[in-house]
Amino acid sequence: MIKEKRTIENNSIGVVKTEYFSFDSLTLKSGVKFGPITLAYETYGALNKDKSNAILVLHALSGDAHAAGIHEGQDNPGWWDSMIGSGKAFDTNKYFVICSNILGGCQGSTGPSSINSKTGKPYALDFPLISIRDMVNAQKHLIDHLGIDKLLSVTGGSMGGLQALAWLVKYPERIASVIPIATTIRHSPQQIAFNEVGRQAIMADGHWKAGNYYEGQAPIKGLAVARMIGHITYMSDKSMAEKFGRQKKDNAEPFKFTADFEVEGYLHYRGDNFVKRFDANSYLYITKAMDNFDASGGKPLQEVLQDVKVKALVIAFKSDWLYPAYQSKEIVKACKLSGIEATYCEVDSTYGHDAFLLEIAEETHLVSHFLKKVFYGYEAA
Amino acid sequence: MIKEKRTIENNSIGVVKTEYFSFDSLTLKSGVKFGPITLAYETYGALNKDKSNAILVLHALSGDAHAAGIHEGQDNPGWWDSMIGSGKAFDTNKYFVICSNILGGCQGSTGPSSINSKTGKPYALDFPLISIRDMVNAQKHLIDHLGIDKLLSVTGGSMGGLQALAWLVKYPERIASVIPIATTIRHSPQQIAFNEVGRQAIMADGHWKAGNYYEGQAPIKGLAVARMIGHITYMSDKSMAEKFGRQKKDNAEPFKFTADFEVEGYLHYRGDNFVKRFDANSYLYITKAMDNFDASGGKPLQEVLQDVKVKALVIAFKSDWLYPAYQSKEIVKACKLSGIEATYCEVDSTYGHDAFLLEIAEETHLVSHFLKKVFYGYEAA
Repeated sequence: MIKEKRTIENNSIGVVKTEYFSFDSLTLKSGVKFGPITLAYETYGALNKDKSNAILVLHALSGDAHAAGIHEGQDNPGWWDSMIGSGKAFDTNKYFVICSNILGGCQGSTGPSSINSKTGKPYALDFPLISIRDMVNAQKHLIDHLGIDKLLSVTGGSMGGLQALAWLVKYPERIASVIPIATTIRHSPQQIAFNEVGRQAIMADGHWKAGNYYEGQAPIKGLAVARMIGHITYMSDKSMAEKFGRQKKDNAEPFKFTADFEVEGYLHYRGDNFVKRFDANSYLYITKAMDNFDASGGKPLQEVLQDVKVKALVIAFKSDWLYPAYQSKEIVKACKLSGIEATYCEVDSTYGHDAFLLEIAEETHLVSHFLKKVFYGYEAA
Repeated sequence: MIKEKRTIENNSIGVVKTEYFSFDSLTLKSGVKFGPITLAYETYGALNKDKSNAILVLHALSGDAHAAGIHEGQDNPGWWDSMIGSGKAFDTNKYFVICSNILGGCQGSTGPSSINSKTGKPYALDFPLISIRDMVNAQKHLIDHLGIDKLLSVTGGSMGGLQALAWLVKYPERIASVIPIATTIRHSPQQIAFNEVGRQAIMADGHWKAGNYYEGQAPIKGLAVARMIGHITYMSDKSMAEKFGRQKKDNAEPFKFTADFEVEGYLHYRGDNFVKRFDANSYLYITKAMDNFDASGGKPLQEVLQDVKVKALVIAFKSDWLYPAYQSKEIVKACKLSGIEATYCEVDSTYGHDAFLLEIAEETHLVSHFLKKVFYGYEAA
């Protein structure tokens, strides 16, 4: 049985602790005023005296605030541990790295599974519909709270990249640079379609009950199906062929409706693990925010980036068919057209969309050089 | 709202009728002897005197025996009506075309929803697990029954292509030619993965009840999700972009969990329509047969094709990412290595896997010329 486990490296930053920041309310893109809001976040490294070395790392759909190091008593490192730490791409000897769980999430930040103080019960579908911009506005409250005027960089892959673009468009004066990875200005119909099928799988589960499942059984079967669909899109045809081939499971029973093939067992394993840590309603709200997102509100991106002074490093991966490289090229083109200094790199990877979590050597090379350039340029300014 | 409807063309072959052929039993690949078996089938055109003009058309996962013409009182033509008829690719003025619903299906042929004479109830999961080869063996009974010694050609797209390859390997002496379209020697782990997620969606539906749903509500929500996943894989990123873009539905309620985007409405429409005509257990059995299929039983295909005298036309489509062109090239390579005269054409289409149902002009050109060559060569032999 092929499983996946992130292992702690020798140069891990060690034990870290999740912190919490709360504020009264936020006026959402929909016009609704919503609060109170808590964000779970972690920081790594130290903020320098003039607060010019802060980098905000933005997580993907299923990510959380725990981007690096390990939690006391646990041995599973953060989701981007290989990128954040001493001597790594986001070098904690130089930079102060912040990662917060998004608004709408289910891992410490306020989301549909949080308790609504008016009712004493989880919000469920009374949680307001949120947008990527709302997530970013909530993060801005956190950045203000930390006393940071200008972030050295904002970065993230996949949905993290959507947030990075929202920062670029909405708060260009608050960032010196942006590193959108394996992402897009707006979802294509194919990307919307995959998300919609995941949502339908959740809502088709009899336990979903229009979102009111918190006192009973959660719609874990539907959520697992949604996650399995996701995992297919995160890998490539080639990486699946290399990893699984048509290998049968040890306990395969040919001609039964069990998981005969290794690839099936892997999907089940991924699905089953996901439902232990993720809330189905959060999945609905977050994927909808992704689909509705349009960095430039329907206009060409270059139009809304006029006079923006931010440096950009855009990274895509050749075998990523969920966020294909042509979408990253559109970001680069818009940057160039609006006079933004943008560097583009298409990494020759077979890992598919997952590459942003796996192509560490290449990303480290690209990111560390880019940050050095921005940091010393910015310092001198 | 974008819908899909096949329209009757002027040169339709008109009203056709489904026929039924039954036989006692079949020893399945699993060793199980199973029967009785009924196959629903249709024929178009007339069998010539020396019975040398018969073409067997093999349908895809959701297809049926109704490949051309219309049924009395209905106006929806068969699934390959644009390819079968007077002056068309499979020209009914020259050829006798046969199409049968597969064993395990739910549209007239014996499948899990058929009545088990021993219990008086539908088989459900007492139906034996079947293989693509079993489907072909059942078809061979039909071909024997029609008194045809040698088929001029066997052809089909997608799962129809898997069956065509099974004919080529198992009964090469019974066919003069083979036209596998948008298909593969064996499923890749990615193809297995998509099928498995569809199966999991069905089995996650509380109404599935381990297959025993025939007296109550069917697992239509799960089956609809499976079909929606399928439809994403049948189109291409580009064809979805061209067809839907990010267009919103007329009645879209932004920021609600309804279908906001046209592409979502399309998937719902396709899913809802499918569950009216398809049995969820059939979906499980058929996709499992596809995944387990390996045309050459694990060996290189060229090894099992030694001394085979069959002409082959292999067609693939550039934007088909479900059955990518490299898989068709593997078929061609194996044919060439075993001395089979094989022609390969990769059609430059943006339609994705659906192209085999849509790129009619190109397919007609390729197929009609190929068949003419085979037919007159075969006639003269």
